[in-house]
Amino acid sequence: MSFDEIIDRHGTHSVKWDAMEAIYGVPASDGISMWVADMDFRPPQCISDAVAKMHEHGVYGYYGDDAPYREAICWWMKSRHGWDVDPAGIFTTHGLVNGTAMCVDAFTNPGEGVVLFTPVYHAFAKVISAAGRTVVECEMNNIDGRYELDFDAYDAQMTGNETMLVFCSPHNPSGRVWSKGELQAVAAFAKRHELILVSDEIHHDLVFEGNTHIPMANIAGIEDRLVMMTATTKTFNIAGSHSGNVIIADPDLRARFGARMMAMGLSPNSFGLFMAEAAYSPEGAAWVDDLVQYLDGNRKVFDAGVNAIPGLKSMDMQSTYLAWVDFEDTGMSREEFTARVEQNARIAANHGPTFGKGGDSFLRFNFATPRSRIIEAVERLQTAFGDLQ
Amino acid sequence: MSFDEIIDRHGTHSVKWDAMEAIYGVPASDGISMWVADMDFRPPQCISDAVAKMHEHGVYGYYGDDAPYREAICWWMKSRHGWDVDPAGIFTTHGLVNGTAMCVDAFTNPGEGVVLFTPVYHAFAKVISAAGRTVVECEMNNIDGRYELDFDAYDAQMTGNETMLVFCSPHNPSGRVWSKGELQAVAAFAKRHELILVSDEIHHDLVFEGNTHIPMANIAGIEDRLVMMTATTKTFNIAGSHSGNVIIADPDLRARFGARMMAMGLSPNSFGLFMAEAAYSPEGAAWVDDLVQYLDGNRKVFDAGVNAIPGLKSMDMQSTYLAWVDFEDTGMSREEFTARVEQNARIAANHGPTFGKGGDSFLRFNFATPRSRIIEAVERLQTAFGDLQ
Repeated sequence: MSFDEIIDRHGTHSVKWDAMEAIYGVPASDGISMWVADMDFRPPQCISDAVAKMHEHGVYGYYGDDAPYREAICWWMKSRHGWDVDPAGIFTTHGLVNGTAMCVDAFTNPGEGVVLFTPVYHAFAKVISAAGRTVVECEMNNIDGRYELDFDAYDAQMTGNETMLVFCSPHNPSGRVWSKGELQAVAAFAKRHELILVSDEIHHDLVFEGNTHIPMANIAGIEDRLVMMTATTKTFNIAGSHSGNVIIADPDLRARFGARMMAMGLSPNSFGLFMAEAAYSPEGAAWVDDLVQYLDGNRKVFDAGVNAIPGLKSMDMQSTYLAWVDFEDTGMSREEFTARVEQNARIAANHGPTFGKGGDSFLRFNFATPRSRIIEAVERLQTAFGDLQ
Repeated sequence: MSFDEIIDRHGTHSVKWDAMEAIYGVPASDGISMWVADMDFRPPQCISDAVAKMHEHGVYGYYGDDAPYREAICWWMKSRHGWDVDPAGIFTTHGLVNGTAMCVDAFTNPGEGVVLFTPVYHAFAKVISAAGRTVVECEMNNIDGRYELDFDAYDAQMTGNETMLVFCSPHNPSGRVWSKGELQAVAAFAKRHELILVSDEIHHDLVFEGNTHIPMANIAGIEDRLVMMTATTKTFNIAGSHSGNVIIADPDLRARFGARMMAMGLSPNSFGLFMAEAAYSPEGAAWVDDLVQYLDGNRKVFDAGVNAIPGLKSMDMQSTYLAWVDFEDTGMSREEFTARVEQNARIAANHGPTFGKGGDSFLRFNFATPRSRIIEAVERLQTAFGDLQ
């Protein structure tokens, strides 16, 4: 397969392409959709084959025996991330928004504070607020286009009412891969303030050459308050399957989470399981290696083109396919730079403020699409901001 | 397609066939699986086509624009059940066990009582208990092999702590289709005791000729405390998609349920939506008509064969594919009649006590399988209980 192939997703119930015009006013006819975090690529052949096999058999009844599915997860985490997973500690939720919500539900009480290092993935704050908990935004420092955590400030911000930290590693929207020292500091912060640490590592497979993602589970001393979250959906572009894995080593946390899974009547859909088992395989791994190279190529084209526009700065990233572009130095209002992107360049990108404090001057661009579109998007942005040249 | 076709489901992650030996000791080699409530049939061609189309397109991203899906549901409910559904009142849960759990979560508090008319579908009690609510079992009267509701007794049983009633219509496991008078009495009971009435109507499409299912939504005066639950999964045998619909007309209940959906981060998987939209169509309807005829034929064969065994009584049923067989008059202990079914007849059937009070002397047999298997099952049962002849 070629990542260069343009696959028309209009009219396929794709929210990314079909809702673009209604939400951003970007015309469906020739707009470029760079918002919702899915890719415009087909998944690897092993996943397509799994769906074909399911279709051929044709009976879509209740799924049983997920032992091979769990084994596949353990194999992947061990071989790709050096992380030993106990298969009994895997809970399959309906994606990781649901996974995050289940953590909030299982481990916190209404009124308590849940800490986020912002800007960060917008759905966290949504489910935390919807559950009647308080979002505690600890803003990161943007030091020369790189996010740094400021624990002195965060320590001062804590009131004692906080009971959970939802951490994003690698970081969405900046693409930061955290160092071992930073992860240790995050763990120490969680211990210091007695927070359950939920580590959302959904982008862990999409790390560019020269960088290494370290699972929080491999940081010593945090296991008794740690909840890990991973999924096949981002890595393999199968978000429609709405399947994610919440992985818990600590027996007490595991029991509490399991009890809530039972109380919510949650059990996984068979499509997600069939696809995940096929994905976490040597064939899936080879595809991911190719994918990451292709994404890195897109990143270079996008960043070079965007950073050539005076006043625009695409943050240096080590992972993900989500570029975080700062328009601060254009001196334009948020309304103006957004209008130029949406109306002049005809590109749909996520608005920065939805990611929380520190996001105001940013837009997030998804570049997981054939390169020809990235080249076109860059040209359009250069034209839309041509007066700054 | 022919419902007579034997499709081998061994080794396809089918819990019904692959877990039978571990759970019931019924050998995989020649056992007949009649427990888990899915069917051994392929769904209609329109659903297979929807999966094939999805596979052909091949990009499994986030689903958007569910308006056609909602319209399909409204069309089905109107044309098949004479029920007007407001598309804005439809919530898609991960199947109806999750749907039930979400109702318990949204509309009751820990420690409160949730009423069931038992024996009834076992998962209700499981999620109610797991959520820390009390299961209040109101046992039905078995009057000459027909369940009757006894509201005088239930009125006396109420303590004032009960806040919800989960009702099953048509009834699983007996296959009872409730009359208008009975539904009115259930509604009046819910009003009298100020209970939210959750009406699980997942079997509403599988009603045999000569009987009519009446949606609880069409009973006057209950709409301000009513939650309806339906799904494509039982009707079309696509349980693996884990999709169900909770449908709420009352604005206040709808807002409360919607808030909990948001807090739990629940949104549907795309497979369930693609399949449901295809299912709720004229082609799907024609298939269901054929299916129900076939199931009715199976019912006649099964009931005639089982009722010919002295001491066994398969309850008269007007719907579903789940026969509820009473072994009381054999005079045998539960262990003995169960052992004869599992070890001698090599049939896996659900154990009665899991359905709550009143289920002790029963087994539930799923006859949604090719007729040749039903004939074989009946012969095996006649042999296993041959000494009673």
